[in-house]
Amino acid sequence: MRVRLQDVAERAGVSTATASMVLNGKDDSISGETRARVRAVAREMRYRPNVLARSLRSQRTRAIGFISDEVVTTPYAGAMIQGAQRVADDHGYVLLLANTDYHPDVERRAVEALLDRQIDAAVYATMYHRIIEPPTSLENIPTVILDSRPKDEAAFSWVAPDEVGGAKAAVEHLADAGHRRIAMINDRDDTPAAVEREEAWRTILDARGLDRDLDLLAYANSDATSGAIAASQLLGGENPPTAIFCFNDRIAAGVYIAASRLGVSIPQDLSVVGFDNQILVAEAVDPGLTSVQLPHDEMGRWAMEQVLRLLDKGAGPQGKRMPCPLVERGSVAPPGQL
Amino acid sequence: MRVRLQDVAERAGVSTATASMVLNGKDDSISGETRARVRAVAREMRYRPNVLARSLRSQRTRAIGFISDEVVTTPYAGAMIQGAQRVADDHGYVLLLANTDYHPDVERRAVEALLDRQIDAAVYATMYHRIIEPPTSLENIPTVILDSRPKDEAAFSWVAPDEVGGAKAAVEHLADAGHRRIAMINDRDDTPAAVEREEAWRTILDARGLDRDLDLLAYANSDATSGAIAASQLLGGENPPTAIFCFNDRIAAGVYIAASRLGVSIPQDLSVVGFDNQILVAEAVDPGLTSVQLPHDEMGRWAMEQVLRLLDKGAGPQGKRMPCPLVERGSVAPPGQL
Repeated sequence: MRVRLQDVAERAGVSTATASMVLNGKDDSISGETRARVRAVAREMRYRPNVLARSLRSQRTRAIGFISDEVVTTPYAGAMIQGAQRVADDHGYVLLLANTDYHPDVERRAVEALLDRQIDAAVYATMYHRIIEPPTSLENIPTVILDSRPKDEAAFSWVAPDEVGGAKAAVEHLADAGHRRIAMINDRDDTPAAVEREEAWRTILDARGLDRDLDLLAYANSDATSGAIAASQLLGGENPPTAIFCFNDRIAAGVYIAASRLGVSIPQDLSVVGFDNQILVAEAVDPGLTSVQLPHDEMGRWAMEQVLRLLDKGAGPQGKRMPCPLVERGSVAPPGQL
Repeated sequence: MRVRLQDVAERAGVSTATASMVLNGKDDSISGETRARVRAVAREMRYRPNVLARSLRSQRTRAIGFISDEVVTTPYAGAMIQGAQRVADDHGYVLLLANTDYHPDVERRAVEALLDRQIDAAVYATMYHRIIEPPTSLENIPTVILDSRPKDEAAFSWVAPDEVGGAKAAVEHLADAGHRRIAMINDRDDTPAAVEREEAWRTILDARGLDRDLDLLAYANSDATSGAIAASQLLGGENPPTAIFCFNDRIAAGVYIAASRLGVSIPQDLSVVGFDNQILVAEAVDPGLTSVQLPHDEMGRWAMEQVLRLLDKGAGPQGKRMPCPLVERGSVAPPGQL
């Protein structure tokens, strides 16, 4: 038999109203001794309040599910949660997060657990920008995709970074400084981020009439060691670049390592721009790394605001590309003599 | 009136069993058309399954709440969630996470939302090691504190890093390499991590009979810029250290920056050891940074295993200090001529 609030109150020798106040944390007016007794009895009887009854009264549970692959466990995109959370807080909602670790089984159980627990809507977030198909069970509640785009753009709301705009800003910044040989070290993986950033780099090279030979493009894994190898190749060529635009900040850190080993000074001999604006990396290199910001906070906020529009206004699905601003530090200067 | 499964089945023109299979994701044997129709009707009627009925059948909801200040939004301790999650997965539990952003109000609502949703137990995690008082409402369910210690150690299970052991290993590693003037740049904040690591540094200096003058201790904020200022002071003194043990890797990155500006080579002229083993920093500096690992994954696993012991075996509260191993890269060598 389910233990009811009345059972706890009776055993603790208090009124149901008092027991309710204690167990709902609205116990400012109740003596410490009574509070302790009610809680002890509730614990002993394994009492649990009835969320369904509560939500039936309000029609809303005021909880939003936030399902992600590994946003919560990796050091990159946590600001998305912070942005979403703050909008949720402002509107009296709580975010309940589930991490799926890319395992379909874990995801299925996590989504089921959240749906079972009466969430009003969901945010489905990914650690990096890609094209996805959210679990079909999310079709039953308003759902916004965060940091990716759905295969069927009419079915879900989504917000993703404006990769092209961010990459254009980076390459234009280098062109504006006077560079004519601007290389790119791109990520090896064929993701929307890699494809769109490389496309933007080519577009600006063409638009500005800059060099665009094959010696200016290299690929790396997304880490410093691999970035250093790619940079050594670019810088060791016959006609090396005077500037390098990197797929991410970890690769840019590798460019610093390769440059230092080759006696190439940043920014006097070589300008560098990263992508991510990852503070741990940008501050660890000297001079500080100029980088393109992934708008994690803004995307998180937009996703939660869109959830509220879907819930409150019955709005239809909407897609949004969020601008990626350039953050200038000390790694860009006019070209010197390499 | 609450919409029942029968209502959905009736409106969709299928049996209750079929509707149940579709809405519980066990729909492999059901035609795509039927699945789509049942889902559309469920959505239209705003049907929600009854988690309470389900959990009453099993006595367990198999969901664990994971409440944290900012573990999910900062780039440091995500591996704790991964560790806890994997143990949960292995035992058929899901983790439902809530991020409180250090706001007592948000925390209160988040904990309430989780308790309302019938979690079996909770992990209460902090981004860094401190002494805490968990919300009293968590006293009603088995709760394990992760990465901190409770004010009342008899009331809660807890797991925290063995700060003293980790710091001793770092300083002994430098002493073993032959250094006699081993400085420490500690964090300014008076946290258990800072206090215990400094105490360990002093202990090893004494035990080995090494120099321990005041010129060997500096304080910084936990970032590279502040670390560089502290390192410049240490290295600019009359009798500078030949090795520096840093409170964290960000401060260590600042030591690299200061050393480079002063023409001091790492590790030939100066050995450096960090704390955190934060890969983004350790790989961004050259040579790679030797650092003490915070055992986030292991602590996360232990916390979830302890949750299971509390649930399944009725075990009592238990505390655990988790070892912090040294991870060697390239930043330590025998002392040269500074």
